[in-house]
Amino acid sequence: MALLLIIVLGLLSVVYGVWAIRSVVAADAGNARMQEIAGAIAEGAQAYLRRQYATIGVVGLVIFVAVAIFLSVTVAIGFLIGAVLSAAAGFIGMNVSVRANVRTAQAASKSLAAGLDIAFTSGAVTGMLVAGLALLGVAGYYAVLTGILGHTLEDRVVVDALVALGFGASLISIFARLGGGIFTKGADVGGDLVGKVEAGIPEDDPRNPATIADNVGDNVGDCAGMAADLFETYAVTVVATMVLAAIFFAGNAALPSLILYPLAICAICIVTSIAGTFFVKLPASQSIMGALYRGFGAAAAFSLVGIAIVTGLLVGFSTSYTTTTGVTFTGWSLYLCAVIGLVITGLIIVITEYYTGTNFRPVKSIAAASVTGHGTNVIQGLAISLEATALPALVIIAGIISTNALAGLFGIAIAVTAMLALAGFVVALDAFGPVTDNAGGIAEMAGLPAEVRHATDALDAVGNTTKAVTKGYAIGSAGLGALVLFAAYTSDLNHFIQNSAQYPYFEGVKLDFALTNPYVVVGLLFGGMLPFLFGAMGMTAVGRAASAIVEEVRRQFREKPGIMTGADRPDYGRAVDLLTRAAIREMIVPSLLPVLSPIVAYFVVLGVAGKSEAFSAVGAMLLGVIVTGLFVALSMTSGGGAWDNAKKYIEDGHHGGKGSDAHKAAVTGDTVGDPYKDTAGPAVNPMIKITNIVALLLLAVLAH
Amino acid sequence: MALLLIIVLGLLSVVYGVWAIRSVVAADAGNARMQEIAGAIAEGAQAYLRRQYATIGVVGLVIFVAVAIFLSVTVAIGFLIGAVLSAAAGFIGMNVSVRANVRTAQAASKSLAAGLDIAFTSGAVTGMLVAGLALLGVAGYYAVLTGILGHTLEDRVVVDALVALGFGASLISIFARLGGGIFTKGADVGGDLVGKVEAGIPEDDPRNPATIADNVGDNVGDCAGMAADLFETYAVTVVATMVLAAIFFAGNAALPSLILYPLAICAICIVTSIAGTFFVKLPASQSIMGALYRGFGAAAAFSLVGIAIVTGLLVGFSTSYTTTTGVTFTGWSLYLCAVIGLVITGLIIVITEYYTGTNFRPVKSIAAASVTGHGTNVIQGLAISLEATALPALVIIAGIISTNALAGLFGIAIAVTAMLALAGFVVALDAFGPVTDNAGGIAEMAGLPAEVRHATDALDAVGNTTKAVTKGYAIGSAGLGALVLFAAYTSDLNHFIQNSAQYPYFEGVKLDFALTNPYVVVGLLFGGMLPFLFGAMGMTAVGRAASAIVEEVRRQFREKPGIMTGADRPDYGRAVDLLTRAAIREMIVPSLLPVLSPIVAYFVVLGVAGKSEAFSAVGAMLLGVIVTGLFVALSMTSGGGAWDNAKKYIEDGHHGGKGSDAHKAAVTGDTVGDPYKDTAGPAVNPMIKITNIVALLLLAVLAH
Repeated sequence: MALLLIIVLGLLSVVYGVWAIRSVVAADAGNARMQEIAGAIAEGAQAYLRRQYATIGVVGLVIFVAVAIFLSVTVAIGFLIGAVLSAAAGFIGMNVSVRANVRTAQAASKSLAAGLDIAFTSGAVTGMLVAGLALLGVAGYYAVLTGILGHTLEDRVVVDALVALGFGASLISIFARLGGGIFTKGADVGGDLVGKVEAGIPEDDPRNPATIADNVGDNVGDCAGMAADLFETYAVTVVATMVLAAIFFAGNAALPSLILYPLAICAICIVTSIAGTFFVKLPASQSIMGALYRGFGAAAAFSLVGIAIVTGLLVGFSTSYTTTTGVTFTGWSLYLCAVIGLVITGLIIVITEYYTGTNFRPVKSIAAASVTGHGTNVIQGLAISLEATALPALVIIAGIISTNALAGLFGIAIAVTAMLALAGFVVALDAFGPVTDNAGGIAEMAGLPAEVRHATDALDAVGNTTKAVTKGYAIGSAGLGALVLFAAYTSDLNHFIQNSAQYPYFEGVKLDFALTNPYVVVGLLFGGMLPFLFGAMGMTAVGRAASAIVEEVRRQFREKPGIMTGADRPDYGRAVDLLTRAAIREMIVPSLLPVLSPIVAYFVVLGVAGKSEAFSAVGAMLLGVIVTGLFVALSMTSGGGAWDNAKKYIEDGHHGGKGSDAHKAAVTGDTVGDPYKDTAGPAVNPMIKITNIVALLLLAVLAH
Repeated sequence: MALLLIIVLGLLSVVYGVWAIRSVVAADAGNARMQEIAGAIAEGAQAYLRRQYATIGVVGLVIFVAVAIFLSVTVAIGFLIGAVLSAAAGFIGMNVSVRANVRTAQAASKSLAAGLDIAFTSGAVTGMLVAGLALLGVAGYYAVLTGILGHTLEDRVVVDALVALGFGASLISIFARLGGGIFTKGADVGGDLVGKVEAGIPEDDPRNPATIADNVGDNVGDCAGMAADLFETYAVTVVATMVLAAIFFAGNAALPSLILYPLAICAICIVTSIAGTFFVKLPASQSIMGALYRGFGAAAAFSLVGIAIVTGLLVGFSTSYTTTTGVTFTGWSLYLCAVIGLVITGLIIVITEYYTGTNFRPVKSIAAASVTGHGTNVIQGLAISLEATALPALVIIAGIISTNALAGLFGIAIAVTAMLALAGFVVALDAFGPVTDNAGGIAEMAGLPAEVRHATDALDAVGNTTKAVTKGYAIGSAGLGALVLFAAYTSDLNHFIQNSAQYPYFEGVKLDFALTNPYVVVGLLFGGMLPFLFGAMGMTAVGRAASAIVEEVRRQFREKPGIMTGADRPDYGRAVDLLTRAAIREMIVPSLLPVLSPIVAYFVVLGVAGKSEAFSAVGAMLLGVIVTGLFVALSMTSGGGAWDNAKKYIEDGHHGGKGSDAHKAAVTGDTVGDPYKDTAGPAVNPMIKITNIVALLLLAVLAH
């Protein structure tokens, strides 16, 4: 009954999506020139996603078959559901985004409020589909497994199938994040270098053959990539919380309600998020950020109430629960954990805005350092990127300590679930970014009047902040979510060892996760290395893709001198095509790093030492990835955002404004920040979780 | 008897030092102009060090009194010995260095071989004093404690006093590394910005008021700073190995020889290092790097033999030992561990040279990326800096696994001891750098003929590589040394808990270092945060110091227009003075971060949860610092070295050579790399160890 209600609420997001899509598509799509440009962007974006999904499809098929053989078809279908729904959320969201961009530009020519309305509604489609489809996937397949197929809650196949569902989402996520990130920043960096720097033409100038690719990149990177990322975090966290519930309350009469509790939190928050979207209205002050925060505040406030209701109905505030590990807590404690999750979300948003907003010390200090040159700009930017990790880490630490004190590991899991339950609204904030960015590009290319460009610029500046804020949220939640996954790994492992009669592979395995075990240290170091190596690969890939674009644009300028005079049209398609191939090629190897690392680590240590040591090393590796990954990702995304806005701050007329030497230095910083914040940094998220989930699947395979 | 021999061998390094100082000082000091410049550098360097030591003296006095009150006077004297000897090694080394620079310039005007000879001999003074004084301090005070004062080996006061000795060295080290790093890079970055970029005058031009400060910086940063750093790693590692021996072989008849074993390895390697210095002779090919590597190879080969002899005499190859934790191994296994330590040293040197040498892919890729601008240079440099962490981490992992398999934790400790036993020679390679760098500067400022500058440039280029290589070695050994310290922390803690009748504070404490303990995760995250925050502080401090220099130089140019025409002399002293004050002021807060963090972490978690949780969190914090610190430090030093040499590679005539746009971009990369490789990166070493050693002292205080 409760499960059915959850699924109905999940479907509500689809209903909202359909309604929102219709309202976006119904808007005026502008003049022929605008539609032509938007058509080119849409075509490029679709071509890219098709090719990306085709490539992932091949990898996915191999994994599907492998999972079906090593585990079971039921589990493999879980994998398929996760992958297909994640891909669908990204695909639909992006298709709305490439229709909303031109309509936002057109609406902005009437009023700022109208432009904001279309851009945000379009973002909300992606957001609600991400949350809704993820919830539908998990809750729906759970209903099929326990209802139609008749598996009991303790059945391993239920856990394995849900974990595989998370793995399917992870796979899409890592490829989408990396491929999209390489595409978008290859276009951005390469296009700027050859356009702004070499040819001396402004950004989004239609004479630049890379300009359509740049706009395509916004959609495939920020929209489809972020959607896949948060779909994954959402699905994986809910699954991990359910797995923990299944282990912690095995044999407990309350298990059915506790296992549904995370799903119920997510379901009610879809309703509160949708309700929040209606509060996004431009206030009299014309503050766009204010409008967005008002909506977010409303969603968060409704969620506090909604989660209280769910808690009261499903687990009861005063009911007391005891886990198999001996931790006792009440429903009230669980509610407080959920509240802490919402508070963490709020704090991370505030901190990220402090580090990336133009009104505060960090960004201003980078802008000031630009006056003395390129070098000092980059030094200060790196200093800020390092510093920006400290406060979020302290917030996360406080969150762990407080929720653990309230309800142990399960409390931490519930806090993360609550944090992610608002993902629908947060993704809406993020997916708003590429739409406004594109709208600005279209306004420029179509030669719309200056005041339109002024309105789209205002929207775009806010988009930069919301993109940075969302990334901080995505990483914070990914880090905490990964801790839950790690808890699932250790609990799962203990479960297998305790029931080694049933799982003979685990016979005689002795777990030693103590830091005094050298294999734990080895695992921590090996895991700690991965985000650095992965980051290096991402940065290098962007460099190569950008160089390819530079060569291509130079060639077009050389062979068609008429482009610069406006007599000849540049071949936008070739640039898009070239980047598509480069991004797809470059994403393969780094994506495989986190997939293969747990497996390689396990078998190497197994060969050198033994099973017990191998399990310890892999477990420590998972935590090592989290520890360094959290800091690497936070520093990259915050630093990149700060560099970007330091440039904007100078362009707003400080330190000499546009064209000054300080501005040139700030452009360098922005270029450096681009792959930091949009490729390497965000891709660390899925990489953290994919290592964890592969380790969980490895356990399942070994147990089988 | 064996202890006496160890002390005699330690004294040998002092004898070598005296002889080498005489041979350096006896060389021709060049013409009056050269001596005047060298005099200004020497004066500035001495003034800086005096002020630095005075400041540290105040902090040190407070700590001395605190240690004397909370522990005992004997322990406080240990602290004093460590601090004074470390300061002495740096002070003497630097004083030789500022005399050798001008003599190297003069000798280079005759032949490259003569220049190399003086520069290397001067470096060897610092190197041998570092190793010799550290060994004398530890072995000497150990002899006093166990001989004259009659403490038994198991006596806590022996352990505490030796740990305090390490702490004294650490304190000098963190201040010297940070203060020296801020000074040298403030001068370098600031001087370049205002001289090269603004005024368009070459590096080391006597008209630049910051040029003497720049040369002073080389001495206080690279010579005195690195000396303090390796003195600390050396002393701390030997002490930690002795502490481990005292715990692992408590009550064992073999304890006296096993506790002396690390000291004996260090003693014999002083002999082999001195022997190695005589193999540094310029070969017919005129390859300076070849000459240095020949010397290092000889020292390493002699050490293999020397350590074998020590092992045979002191512990016996076939004798079998069993630790209190139940690990059994033979003397032969210990010897193999020492060999592995030497192999790790060799591999880290090779890997660092690969990442920072001009002949290999990484540096060439940064140079190639400079062609497309400042941004791509920095992106590629960051990518290389991230990538450069992977291979050293794998080497360290392999080292841990193999030595642990041979002889458990004690095996790891012996490997690190062997690794550090060659510190004398490695510091010689490093301290060679500032001498040649200064020699080049003096040749330029004194207007010596072009061929002299050519010879000093050749020496300087090699100096860049050896500096980078030494930093890789320093970090690798610091990381491994910190693991030994962490082992000492956990073993110490277990010791207190098991003997809680004697140490009532530890009554009822239950250690849970398992990764499944949320307080362990919290500790890992908190510790992991520290190197990022610390790095941020270091980078920002350099930025501020450089800005101060820029202002000062601009002021001098403005107020004395005759400087640029050569009619007026710039006021070098003011620039030195200003930087001295800036560096001293800026070093205080970041230095206190690692000192206070373990204490704060302990008492906060104690307040929130309890003793057991607090000890677990602090322990995990120590490992968290190691895990992220290792990667942060490796990436910063390798990346910085690669940026520096990419600039040199372009200056050698590639990609358009000096003055081209690619060169300008490469200069930006070099500027960014400066605080990375010379301030923030290397300062992470002492910070890793200081957190560990403060935690050890905290245990001692709580036990007291």
